[in-house]
Amino acid sequence: MKSIVIDAMGGDFGPPVTVPAAIKVLSSISDVHITLVGIQEEIEGKLNQHKDAPLDRIRIVHTDQVVKMDDPPAVALRKKRQSSMRIALDLVKSDEAKACVSGGNTGALMAVARFVLKTFPGINRPAIIGQLPTIGGRVHMLDLGANVDCSPGDLFQFGIMGSTFVSLMEKKEFPKVVLLNNGTEEIKGSAILKRAVPLFQESDMNFRGFTEGDGIYTGDADVIVCDGMVGNVAIKASEGAWRLIKHCLESEFKKTPIRMLTSALASPSLNGLKRSLDPRNFNGAALLGLRGSVIKSHGSADKKAFETAVRKAVKEVESDIPAQIHSEISIATGRH
Amino acid sequence: MKSIVIDAMGGDFGPPVTVPAAIKVLSSISDVHITLVGIQEEIEGKLNQHKDAPLDRIRIVHTDQVVKMDDPPAVALRKKRQSSMRIALDLVKSDEAKACVSGGNTGALMAVARFVLKTFPGINRPAIIGQLPTIGGRVHMLDLGANVDCSPGDLFQFGIMGSTFVSLMEKKEFPKVVLLNNGTEEIKGSAILKRAVPLFQESDMNFRGFTEGDGIYTGDADVIVCDGMVGNVAIKASEGAWRLIKHCLESEFKKTPIRMLTSALASPSLNGLKRSLDPRNFNGAALLGLRGSVIKSHGSADKKAFETAVRKAVKEVESDIPAQIHSEISIATGRH
Repeated sequence: MKSIVIDAMGGDFGPPVTVPAAIKVLSSISDVHITLVGIQEEIEGKLNQHKDAPLDRIRIVHTDQVVKMDDPPAVALRKKRQSSMRIALDLVKSDEAKACVSGGNTGALMAVARFVLKTFPGINRPAIIGQLPTIGGRVHMLDLGANVDCSPGDLFQFGIMGSTFVSLMEKKEFPKVVLLNNGTEEIKGSAILKRAVPLFQESDMNFRGFTEGDGIYTGDADVIVCDGMVGNVAIKASEGAWRLIKHCLESEFKKTPIRMLTSALASPSLNGLKRSLDPRNFNGAALLGLRGSVIKSHGSADKKAFETAVRKAVKEVESDIPAQIHSEISIATGRH
Repeated sequence: MKSIVIDAMGGDFGPPVTVPAAIKVLSSISDVHITLVGIQEEIEGKLNQHKDAPLDRIRIVHTDQVVKMDDPPAVALRKKRQSSMRIALDLVKSDEAKACVSGGNTGALMAVARFVLKTFPGINRPAIIGQLPTIGGRVHMLDLGANVDCSPGDLFQFGIMGSTFVSLMEKKEFPKVVLLNNGTEEIKGSAILKRAVPLFQESDMNFRGFTEGDGIYTGDADVIVCDGMVGNVAIKASEGAWRLIKHCLESEFKKTPIRMLTSALASPSLNGLKRSLDPRNFNGAALLGLRGSVIKSHGSADKKAFETAVRKAVKEVESDIPAQIHSEISIATGRH
């Protein structure tokens, strides 16, 4: 039985999103057990709305303390030791669950997860890895915002962790690893990036050099490594660029009654586009480097998006990601 | 008479793009004079194809040395002292032209421009400022790739230069200046960004705090300040995101014959979208901080895109940008 714990109060919506998503996963995968941590009454209220919920594989752990979306990490860490987020992570620490899923605020989740679970030896800082659509597939990128000031050694560890993660989660031998840069020539890049290159070159990674921002979406790489500032700005700039296109397209289609009609006629194609880039299919970023699996869902995730994040947690448990990362980091840093 | 010099050989195409673009600008603005630097035979060949070219406002300066798109900055600087790029910049230095336009490689152009023209006192490094579309307008962003490792003081200078540039070029009093970051809360950001904040707060800039990557396109800011690594990755990631959408939309519209028909019917709207985001309307990034105006065109620019860059050079001359930046930097750094 794969045991997952969900911070049922995390995210913008709490139980109305987290509980139905949990039931959906339980209904389709029979060897999963889910612990829901949060306000018992609210969780039970949502469970009662689903007559088909497999209650024998659901446990509720009650707490009424919640980490708010704008709580600073220090508050979550020191003042909220009975929060649903903290208790969920404690259950991973005590091995009662193999993975935790939370839509709570990123800074708090990272701080509490790091404090409760600790990193493996040889890992300076945990990193956040997420998935993005590409022409013809998907790519993973890390770090997405946990670490803004990174050393060459940090980037190297991100490479090892990302490569291990993708090879197991995507069943891809020797994933292609690249460093995100402002050019592909050797002379390009920050002083830190330049010092990171030899570490990658001398490792067992399938290192393919630098890529520029537009290379994120071409499908040429499997793992893109960067510091959390660059990674965060890159994905959010892309989101902003997509929203701008959506806005412009909608206003073009509203310009005349005939255009509104053609918009209706073109809707199968436009909906197809929406589906293939639907961010709900990419929800769930993994915190890597910790002694336990933690999946961060987008705070604004709906049921479908949160379900994607829970499925990722199940897959992480199947692949035993933390143990594999421990092993690969030990080899790469000569600690074995 | 506003005097512009064009590196006619710069960019992927040279005279077949640069010469017709120059003629187009000369035809629509009567008080502009353009010097074309490059291989005389090639330039004359293109000029002869345009019987309407106002030859009395065109001068050719011959040279057959060209900076290649992959020449390292050091090669352009030391080995190619008779290149079209170098001679064009020399003409700005000697005040025979007020602004230079080149589609040559960015690293070489930055290095040669800096060597020939020099920066104003109080400016550590020149920066590249470019324009991007937003919901309802346009925004300027710097640095776009010239400076990857920036100090808080560098970012502050970018803010002053960007604010001065936008207020003059866009006739916008007190442009809203923001710092690009991985979050909008005060605790977010790299150590360098955090140290830059008080410099912005204590200045006369209309500083509005942090913005995230998606904030680039919302139209809430007029000037976005970041280091060259983050800026370059952000705009290139956006380009990649747009290309991905284009690819997905095209393949959706090709899925069935009916969809292909709806694509034809929807083409006025789709073409409207293309027009409003057409990168050719945004071509031409300015190098700021130098004792002279330099506009960098995209290497792959076509005639229309190169024309946009030349028009920007004319506008820079009208606004006397370098002198204004000199004055604002002097005030901001207490050197007046």
